[in-house]
Amino acid sequence: MGRVLIIGAGGVGTVVAHKVAQNADVFTDIMIASRTKEKCDKIVEAIGNPNIKTAKVDADNVEELVALFNDFKPEMVINVALPYQDLTIMEACLKAGVNYLDTANYEPKDEAHFEYSWQWAYHDRFKEAGLTAILGCGFDPGVSGIYTAYAAKHYFDEIQYLDIVDCNAGNHHKAFATNFNPEINIREITQNGRYYENGKWVTTGPLEIHKDLTYPNIGPRDSYLLYHEELESLVKHYPTIKRARFWMTFGQEYLTHLRVIQNIGMARIDEVDYNGMKIVPLQFLKAVLPNPQDLGENYEGETSIGCRIRGLKDGKERTYYVYNNCSHQEAYQETGMQGVSYTTGVPAMIGAMMFFKGEWNRPGVNNVEEFNPDPFMEQLNKQGLPWHEEFDKDLEL
Amino acid sequence: MGRVLIIGAGGVGTVVAHKVAQNADVFTDIMIASRTKEKCDKIVEAIGNPNIKTAKVDADNVEELVALFNDFKPEMVINVALPYQDLTIMEACLKAGVNYLDTANYEPKDEAHFEYSWQWAYHDRFKEAGLTAILGCGFDPGVSGIYTAYAAKHYFDEIQYLDIVDCNAGNHHKAFATNFNPEINIREITQNGRYYENGKWVTTGPLEIHKDLTYPNIGPRDSYLLYHEELESLVKHYPTIKRARFWMTFGQEYLTHLRVIQNIGMARIDEVDYNGMKIVPLQFLKAVLPNPQDLGENYEGETSIGCRIRGLKDGKERTYYVYNNCSHQEAYQETGMQGVSYTTGVPAMIGAMMFFKGEWNRPGVNNVEEFNPDPFMEQLNKQGLPWHEEFDKDLEL
Repeated sequence: MGRVLIIGAGGVGTVVAHKVAQNADVFTDIMIASRTKEKCDKIVEAIGNPNIKTAKVDADNVEELVALFNDFKPEMVINVALPYQDLTIMEACLKAGVNYLDTANYEPKDEAHFEYSWQWAYHDRFKEAGLTAILGCGFDPGVSGIYTAYAAKHYFDEIQYLDIVDCNAGNHHKAFATNFNPEINIREITQNGRYYENGKWVTTGPLEIHKDLTYPNIGPRDSYLLYHEELESLVKHYPTIKRARFWMTFGQEYLTHLRVIQNIGMARIDEVDYNGMKIVPLQFLKAVLPNPQDLGENYEGETSIGCRIRGLKDGKERTYYVYNNCSHQEAYQETGMQGVSYTTGVPAMIGAMMFFKGEWNRPGVNNVEEFNPDPFMEQLNKQGLPWHEEFDKDLEL
Repeated sequence: MGRVLIIGAGGVGTVVAHKVAQNADVFTDIMIASRTKEKCDKIVEAIGNPNIKTAKVDADNVEELVALFNDFKPEMVINVALPYQDLTIMEACLKAGVNYLDTANYEPKDEAHFEYSWQWAYHDRFKEAGLTAILGCGFDPGVSGIYTAYAAKHYFDEIQYLDIVDCNAGNHHKAFATNFNPEINIREITQNGRYYENGKWVTTGPLEIHKDLTYPNIGPRDSYLLYHEELESLVKHYPTIKRARFWMTFGQEYLTHLRVIQNIGMARIDEVDYNGMKIVPLQFLKAVLPNPQDLGENYEGETSIGCRIRGLKDGKERTYYVYNNCSHQEAYQETGMQGVSYTTGVPAMIGAMMFFKGEWNRPGVNNVEEFNPDPFMEQLNKQGLPWHEEFDKDLEL
């Protein structure tokens, strides 16, 4: 039915490859490409399906990407490389006539901020080319937008308050490690907080606002208000929203480590001179920290990510909480990766499945909430990320 | 009267150069050499004495050192380069017939431990060559040993308990910085604690033992038992000692930063591979942290370092506390460097002065407590590190 090319062989790429391979009725021809072909070969070996092809590609290099696309001729690229590389891959898709999906929006390498404008600017070119681009189809962004679209479609006339709540209550038994690319993780957390209220964006200091929120099967966890990219598209697509926020849990030890990493200059993203070499401290730190892909084996506990929504239905106020809990150890048993990679990779596969099944096929650049959420929600239950609903409970928010 | 060559142009080297230049009656010909000649030239410019010569030398390279020694023909080398370089400089001194003084004992680059055995092994060669080597002539080691020798000479028949107490109550107004070469600083603190008791060395975990000690003009400060190199020579030279310990103050924030630096792998002293380059994390960290030499300008507060001694005189128990308090800002006003560099550099100059005046001239390798402490103690009062005595007070130890 469909030829798919996965770019990126990290933790998320490994999960996407496993899930794509599990759905052979939809994904008939599969290739994994990354800067290091050996990493792709290792994934194929772990999956045990020798029909999956692998290739080496430099995702910063449009010409190299185009050559690979023209060679393998995928219908869709699933981009799970680094967010710095979104634009080169989108350019290559336009040149080679390939549809596009990613899980995190473009970010320039030398600045720490997340916004959609760079990628939204590609809308007309994708539309004219008759190509579908699906942006931000991991868990958050991704499932968080689909949950919102599902709530809007079935339960609300008007969504007024939206809080996306992301808890990782896992324990990897390391003194310190980040759960995905530490470079992206640290950038995300050290930037200012930001939320949307009454038509305006309100900026806070980094991690300035926090409160205890209670997560299902986990309990209360200190949760910090962060800016997260899906807020930008959700308030655009749901203009009745009065307030939209994003919360993520962090332990005190984790925050202490981050604070020190900044104090000592190791979170810097500019180059420093070291014995005549130009080195970005945060990139060097990444080389010294545990590889997030190696955390899975001893990872215990679970994640819990969901949307807490308040709004109007038939003129009456109601609340709705939809969430998924994901066990790190179950994720590891299935794919060799922990829950944070799993919850990002599974939705990327489902997004591509939606495209190949013709459910999500709309030339142009699209955020996930612009599509019909129902078939996606159905697949979440089948593909390892079942969701649960609670109505008219106290949202704590 | 004397030709002296200073090797090292860091914070301590800067202080040594200032103090040597201030004592032109003793030091008639002065050269400063380091890997970077520009750093030496800047020191000469700050001192404002164009007669001081400068040179470039790689202190790891014995042949280069010998060539420089044969050219400038110093009578003594003051080694304030890195402790890794003690042995190459000692070798060069033997080859070129130059006397030697340093402030910190040799340490191999790839292991973190401090002991005298490497340098003591040079005793016979220096003795046969008729050359004097003076080891560990900073403050601690250095003045700590001279204080002990002075106490033994004047106040005790038998020193039984010795506690060297080192407090830095300064504030440099940086989130985190080390007061001297951070590489040495971190190595020193992350190693096991060790003290001497009843003829045996007792090992503790790193920073395992700590207590509040009260410092003059400062007050109580949490003080940690560390191993420090002068303990090794002092228990050898004062065999009546029953217990010898070394204590240093650290704030909680400082320790938190050190703990995180270790947890994230940045205290590692082995090479890691980074994009094909071999880099030692701790050395890279040093390049990112504030330069200890740049801390002086805004450094407030003072240091207090001394010896607390208990023992017998005429059959009766007595206690003795001898110490110096040094103001960071006064040190900076005089030399452009903070108190930690100042308290190390001034004794190095005085040690060289003792040699040139014929007070400390004994072929072989010597620790400072083996010489007559009286003329050195006299100079401490004249050269900016006045000392104070307290008798028969509660030592808290």
